[in-house]
Amino acid sequence: MKKLTLNETADFLLKNDNYAILTHRRPDGDTIGSSAALCRILRKLGKTAHVIRNHEISDRFAWLHEGLTKEEASETDTLVTVDVASPGMLPKQFEKYLGSIALRIDHHASATSFTESELVDAGSAASAEIIYDLQQQLWVDFDPATADAIYVGTSTDTGCFRFANTTSHSFVTAAACAANGARVYQLNQELFETNTLGRLKIQGWIVEHMKVFRDGKLAIIAIPKAVEESIGVTEDDMDNISSFPRTVAGVCMASTLRETREGDVKLSVRAIPGYDATALTAKFGGGGHKGAAGATLKMSLTAAAQAVETAMLEL
Amino acid sequence: MKKLTLNETADFLLKNDNYAILTHRRPDGDTIGSSAALCRILRKLGKTAHVIRNHEISDRFAWLHEGLTKEEASETDTLVTVDVASPGMLPKQFEKYLGSIALRIDHHASATSFTESELVDAGSAASAEIIYDLQQQLWVDFDPATADAIYVGTSTDTGCFRFANTTSHSFVTAAACAANGARVYQLNQELFETNTLGRLKIQGWIVEHMKVFRDGKLAIIAIPKAVEESIGVTEDDMDNISSFPRTVAGVCMASTLRETREGDVKLSVRAIPGYDATALTAKFGGGGHKGAAGATLKMSLTAAAQAVETAMLEL
Repeated sequence: MKKLTLNETADFLLKNDNYAILTHRRPDGDTIGSSAALCRILRKLGKTAHVIRNHEISDRFAWLHEGLTKEEASETDTLVTVDVASPGMLPKQFEKYLGSIALRIDHHASATSFTESELVDAGSAASAEIIYDLQQQLWVDFDPATADAIYVGTSTDTGCFRFANTTSHSFVTAAACAANGARVYQLNQELFETNTLGRLKIQGWIVEHMKVFRDGKLAIIAIPKAVEESIGVTEDDMDNISSFPRTVAGVCMASTLRETREGDVKLSVRAIPGYDATALTAKFGGGGHKGAAGATLKMSLTAAAQAVETAMLEL
Repeated sequence: MKKLTLNETADFLLKNDNYAILTHRRPDGDTIGSSAALCRILRKLGKTAHVIRNHEISDRFAWLHEGLTKEEASETDTLVTVDVASPGMLPKQFEKYLGSIALRIDHHASATSFTESELVDAGSAASAEIIYDLQQQLWVDFDPATADAIYVGTSTDTGCFRFANTTSHSFVTAAACAANGARVYQLNQELFETNTLGRLKIQGWIVEHMKVFRDGKLAIIAIPKAVEESIGVTEDDMDNISSFPRTVAGVCMASTLRETREGDVKLSVRAIPGYDATALTAKFGGGGHKGAAGATLKMSLTAAAQAVETAMLEL
């Protein structure tokens, strides 16, 4: 496996042709946006380029691939993955391409090499930021469709610039997208200013039932499986729900317990700087980062909630 | 009144001294952040500069003015306002300075001139963006405290880059702040990822009680004064609450009715592009923009809700 610089990757893209671009399973805004932008950039260079249609793509992002896809890569195609950190991240439909992928473009730090060459920049918050750098390197025109695609990748992977991974380069990328026709306001409305009814209902339930203690600095919420079922939330509705209790004004560290099944509880802890979530999860054999950590507790939800509350008071 | 260019304003700042900076009433992140940044920039130029302490400042932004304030301007001071669009926007305590203000730096389009000279850029989403431009013009070092101040101004006035006023220049300003030590992640957590309990409770109540119709595209919620009182919400909790019902997935236009007092109802309408909020508020003698409009209805809350729902169905 050969590690490429930005320059060398640009040279590679100029030298080869017939590109087939691969995205990862459960595709998110970054893998879809980055693949769409790369495909458009390659076509501007006069290359033949397609994104191979990912069967798992959701309506939320499918419009980005319109006019860019084909069903299968041919044997003579130059295969490129974007935002794929390991072979396991490829959808089943793409496993047959393993062993013949020429280039991987990615921003994941803990990645497994599985391609002939790779451009990996772990300092980028999104793969889309690397695609933007490549575009600059290649002096390709920046059109509105490419700007939309790069903006979607950058904004979704940074949580609209709110996650800790956001850098000056993320804002530079967004500035370039906005200056070149990205529909920043409309995309933000669609991607970030929308909540499902299920999500809003479970948040309402959490507000009514969470326990706040130690002068409002600590919070704990235990969500019974029966409550999730009666509200009718989906896994999408529950995505990152553990970050919600921490957003209550004054709360510095919050524990969220979910009953995955009887006698099996998933603990997720979120903390602001100055607090250490891992200090809590370590007591239950879990791990993570200071700001976000987790553990699994093999006990009833009531027992788990009691144990976690006691442990929080001991911190 | 003399209109100044960016260049001329930079010259003005270099030529004069003993600056006293004024902010607006009910001070927000932009007036506080911009005044703090301007004061720091002037001090770096070797000038004597202070922000005149605004008695209405909240805890949320007071830290930005630490070490920069004095109580009163002296007669020989050069008075500068930031983010003040009209004399009426000055706090009562600053009214005595009217008539002796040398310069106004602002980004409000519909502004009233009331100073000897002014630099107004209505294309900027925040006054802080203009302060950033001035800093660039003056070739002043960009330190972390100034970066924090400019970031707070820019991010709060753009709703963390989600409002329609966000431009490429807003992102450029944020990029420069991030590159020069602004605590972007921490500030975002404090400013945007925090909700008061009162706010969360009223949102929960809205989710439970809002009526969604016309295939989920239209929504209406009528909030009785008694509900606000029983939850115990403050006006801060209710700030921009009318933008909340529109965030429910699928909702394109939402009407929020609040009972200001018996027989007096405030209607606020929010709509996504493609829908026109003013088409609805015009029926009740109100006005606004396509995306956000309002009206006052002199009738009971129940009657108002019925009238608005009927009007929405007629659109």
